Amino acid sequence: MTAPRQDPPAKRPVGRRGGDSDTRSAILDAALDMFAEQGFEKASMRAIASRAGVDSAMIRHFFGNKATLFVTTMADRTVIPERMGAALTGPPESLGIRLADAYLRLWEADDTRPILLGLVRSAMTSSQGAALLLEVIGGRIQEIAPFPAGADGRMRGFAFAATHLFGVAVGRHILQLPMLAGMSREEIVEAVGPTIQRYLTES
Amino acid sequence: MTAPRQDPPAKRPVGRRGGDSDTRSAILDAALDMFAEQGFEKASMRAIASRAGVDSAMIRHFFGNKATLFVTTMADRTVIPERMGAALTGPPESLGIRLADAYLRLWEADDTRPILLGLVRSAMTSSQGAALLLEVIGGRIQEIAPFPAGADGRMRGFAFAATHLFGVAVGRHILQLPMLAGMSREEIVEAVGPTIQRYLTES
Repeated sequence: MTAPRQDPPAKRPVGRRGGDSDTRSAILDAALDMFAEQGFEKASMRAIASRAGVDSAMIRHFFGNKATLFVTTMADRTVIPERMGAALTGPPESLGIRLADAYLRLWEADDTRPILLGLVRSAMTSSQGAALLLEVIGGRIQEIAPFPAGADGRMRGFAFAATHLFGVAVGRHILQLPMLAGMSREEIVEAVGPTIQRYLTES
Repeated sequence: MTAPRQDPPAKRPVGRRGGDSDTRSAILDAALDMFAEQGFEKASMRAIASRAGVDSAMIRHFFGNKATLFVTTMADRTVIPERMGAALTGPPESLGIRLADAYLRLWEADDTRPILLGLVRSAMTSSQGAALLLEVIGGRIQEIAPFPAGADGRMRGFAFAATHLFGVAVGRHILQLPMLAGMSREEIVEAVGPTIQRYLTES
């Protein structure tokens, strides 16, 4: 299975800027494939290095440890943060609806579904990768942060919103519970959107 | 790891009623151990038969297939349905609070925590076992069914309540997200209880 990937953003230096940037890019490409195929725990730094055609010391030079490489890969090489980030833009009163819809779309789209399945596989074998990723996405949401609560309540509300959506997605796409698998995305968004909204704005 | 088990209910025939009941009981004991250790997918009928000291044809005679054995084991040999069932008794207006509290207690208690971890492991490798179990527990909740909605809305509300609690428990106990792991059970119940209530009564 080859995971789909985004083109690198235009602002990243390529070509004549040379070796470093090409190496970093090759490592991220290889990491995306390996994490999607094997999950966070099983994908080894050595195997990623081998697929990228570099020494594993090179990966440590650029990214430090595997957890950092994982988060950087998800943030740089997938459309997930971009699509969730896009859902943040809009009227504050429909934030819950937009986030629920964007998240469930990620589970349906051909270019993100395998990544999310890989992430769940990772999450069940190691808390580190998933927790880090949630931190990254949570951080992005906080940057925009249209909700007025104190920082502590805000993080708690975000945790409940995120785990609620996660539970629904697992129930629909992995457990394939008949009640959830039989509903359209629109119906689910309508049902859970107000709850997500409350968690994000009233915590 | 040996999973804790309940004593068989007093009404089940034992002793002189003889071989059938003893064999059934031995199979359920073995099944509970194997499912807790290996999860639904990996625990084989042959291995369960071997641990119970019977032929695997005997398991099929009593229980049919592995999915039925799994659900029967969870319903007969664990305290999970009993404790969730107990939470159903009480004023309808605090049902959400009671269910959230009972469910999170299952994740904290020494006699049920390993079973739930086994169930999640099962659920991530096979949708069959977990979906069946949810059906059994859902069926019990429907029996009491203090909520007035039509059958379809009721099942949907139940699915959202169940996957919400599942997501929170996974976030707290498996992913160990700092925001959730740092909250007491009481704080979490207070935060999610009203949502669970709404899903069960307003769907």
